[in-house]
Amino acid sequence: MVETNYRTLDEQSVIEYIQNLSIFSADAKLTCREIGDGNLNLVFQIEDQLTGKKVIVKQSLPYARVVGESMPLTVDRNRIEAEALKEEGKYCPEHTVQLFHADPDLRIFVMEDLSDHVIMRKGLIEKQEYPQFADHISTYLANTLFYTSDYYMNPLEKKSLVKRFINPELCKISEDLIFTQPYYDAPENNIPPGVRPLAEQIWKDEELKGEVAKLKHRFMTKAEALLHGDLHTGSIFVRPDRTKVIDPEFAFVGPIGFDIGAVIANLLLNYAAQEGWAENEEEKHVVRSRLLQMAADVWTLFSQKFTALYEKDCHDPMFSQPSFKEFTMKEIFSDTLGYAGCKMIRRIYGLAHVADIDTIKDDVKRLQAQRLALAIGRSLIINRHQVQQINEVKALIQSVE
Amino acid sequence: MVETNYRTLDEQSVIEYIQNLSIFSADAKLTCREIGDGNLNLVFQIEDQLTGKKVIVKQSLPYARVVGESMPLTVDRNRIEAEALKEEGKYCPEHTVQLFHADPDLRIFVMEDLSDHVIMRKGLIEKQEYPQFADHISTYLANTLFYTSDYYMNPLEKKSLVKRFINPELCKISEDLIFTQPYYDAPENNIPPGVRPLAEQIWKDEELKGEVAKLKHRFMTKAEALLHGDLHTGSIFVRPDRTKVIDPEFAFVGPIGFDIGAVIANLLLNYAAQEGWAENEEEKHVVRSRLLQMAADVWTLFSQKFTALYEKDCHDPMFSQPSFKEFTMKEIFSDTLGYAGCKMIRRIYGLAHVADIDTIKDDVKRLQAQRLALAIGRSLIINRHQVQQINEVKALIQSVE
Repeated sequence: MVETNYRTLDEQSVIEYIQNLSIFSADAKLTCREIGDGNLNLVFQIEDQLTGKKVIVKQSLPYARVVGESMPLTVDRNRIEAEALKEEGKYCPEHTVQLFHADPDLRIFVMEDLSDHVIMRKGLIEKQEYPQFADHISTYLANTLFYTSDYYMNPLEKKSLVKRFINPELCKISEDLIFTQPYYDAPENNIPPGVRPLAEQIWKDEELKGEVAKLKHRFMTKAEALLHGDLHTGSIFVRPDRTKVIDPEFAFVGPIGFDIGAVIANLLLNYAAQEGWAENEEEKHVVRSRLLQMAADVWTLFSQKFTALYEKDCHDPMFSQPSFKEFTMKEIFSDTLGYAGCKMIRRIYGLAHVADIDTIKDDVKRLQAQRLALAIGRSLIINRHQVQQINEVKALIQSVE
Repeated sequence: MVETNYRTLDEQSVIEYIQNLSIFSADAKLTCREIGDGNLNLVFQIEDQLTGKKVIVKQSLPYARVVGESMPLTVDRNRIEAEALKEEGKYCPEHTVQLFHADPDLRIFVMEDLSDHVIMRKGLIEKQEYPQFADHISTYLANTLFYTSDYYMNPLEKKSLVKRFINPELCKISEDLIFTQPYYDAPENNIPPGVRPLAEQIWKDEELKGEVAKLKHRFMTKAEALLHGDLHTGSIFVRPDRTKVIDPEFAFVGPIGFDIGAVIANLLLNYAAQEGWAENEEEKHVVRSRLLQMAADVWTLFSQKFTALYEKDCHDPMFSQPSFKEFTMKEIFSDTLGYAGCKMIRRIYGLAHVADIDTIKDDVKRLQAQRLALAIGRSLIINRHQVQQINEVKALIQSVE
């Protein structure tokens, strides 16, 4: 791909760039900070010193920053992210970060600043409560997933959506990191001390590997709805009263359960991490009950809202049949559990971990948390078709402990 | 879409066109006949009167000829067909019509002439035997389907294949004609005398409609391999010693069982049609046994060849696990039966029928054949997960009679 107009911006040139858009008033006194901590993008925060108004400018680097230019990555992911924000914003503006401007040539877009929010992973590690989270995220999931699926869309428009969101390179990252590398002794794995014997057990677990292969193949081939594609708690900004999803650069048309599973997996990773974070047994019990309830509520509310949309807005004479709708909800449920399980396992000893677990200082407790996360992950994958209701998942998790 | 360079050719201008390609020698004495009987394309046969050498030129009309300009159809299907022939020719040249030249601007391609072959549907109606057909078509199916699937392909290339073969309008035709209109009293249905009560039974059959909805959704979302997309016996040219597949304008990346099911459905439609064609009970028995064996052989040989390719050329560490491979073959089998069933039903009272059935002169016998085809179709759909082996299908079909 020839990137003739592409050049990376810095704190100075991004100000010049933004002044040409009509986002700030002409007399704005703009300052800029690069605040990115990812490895794929530059992220600038622009502030008008006169009014305090802020926006974020995100630019894709043509390579993964952490590994330098040795791992080239198409900057097309910037177009995908901006277009995904547009689609998600169409169906769920209240929980999608607002997009102000997109510039495919420079692989840049401008969006709402959310610095009065906190990244949910950080909030959960600090044991913050988010009593509205399950309600908010289930609204996001039900709306964005239903309205971009064949249960709703005109089939011609759906195919064009699939085409626009073909995202080979970022899907490949998921295929490798989630569904492949953790299941053999891949050099990319990042195996913490003490975890190797547990990983070795998984590498010999033919039953588990067979089930993960099925989930991988579904991930690669089931074009059910437009997914966020990377909906962990690091892609969600929260305040007690607000929930905003960011970063859909992994967006593609895939199986609905993958997004829901990502949310639940990250709640359960924090659940496992309470091994290390809870001050005492009582607090551990309280926080865990809260997290389990939140995970259960995410599914229950999603399923209620998705079903309601389905009943209101599915006009296909075949797909509106009750038995098909029931079958679909069951498939989405088993996918959700399976993908949640895969996402838990990969975060323990795959390439990229989660802070919830890795920042536990006590070696023994951290290993307990890792062991628990792996056991829950495995159980979710293996039992995903047997479990009928989300409450059975609670029992299943408690039985694993 | 702006079609600046597009113009339809006639028998004169097609000769001028072909003279500029280096397919015939400079002194060739070319004649041309338009031989198309479809409703979507012009088909010209060009012959060199000096050598007898012939080629076929196919040009897509920008509308469906049969209904005039009221049903616009993108001429992009010509690009799809030419590119599909190229892909299929790469993996199975011996059973794919040879492509000589493709011209995306004029929506034209030039291919091998097969006028010394016969369209298989016609041959079957004439009770011809094709003892090598199952072997040939199973080679075509195994090769074209395996090498365009994630069981083999590099995942980045696979996604680009999916993108190139997004085929919304022709998929919509299949979605409507195969999976939707036959299941309610759609005005597009073409219901023969006597068949209406049978159709009405299907419209009330909630179990069947639920299963067809599942197959429809898989058809629309399961991007498993590059399909021919319309592999009935009218898309296959045969001689006793040769089998050549033509007309992949419906090509898209979909569920593997759809192509295999199409072949089997059309053998079974001819099986049902023997109600009207056989001279006596003995001949009926002989021809039917032959057709059933052929249908069974198509599956058995496909499954052997596909498995052999899988074992030789699947390098994905997850997909090469034995339990996943076994699961995949089972899924392809149940899809095959389900899609075969759908394709039988739609050919009885949907928009487009098959000559095997419709040209039976005797009203009573024709209705018997129609009734039998519908019953076999329903049984294949409903029982597709219970049936374990192709031999059980024989028993199932015989039990339906």
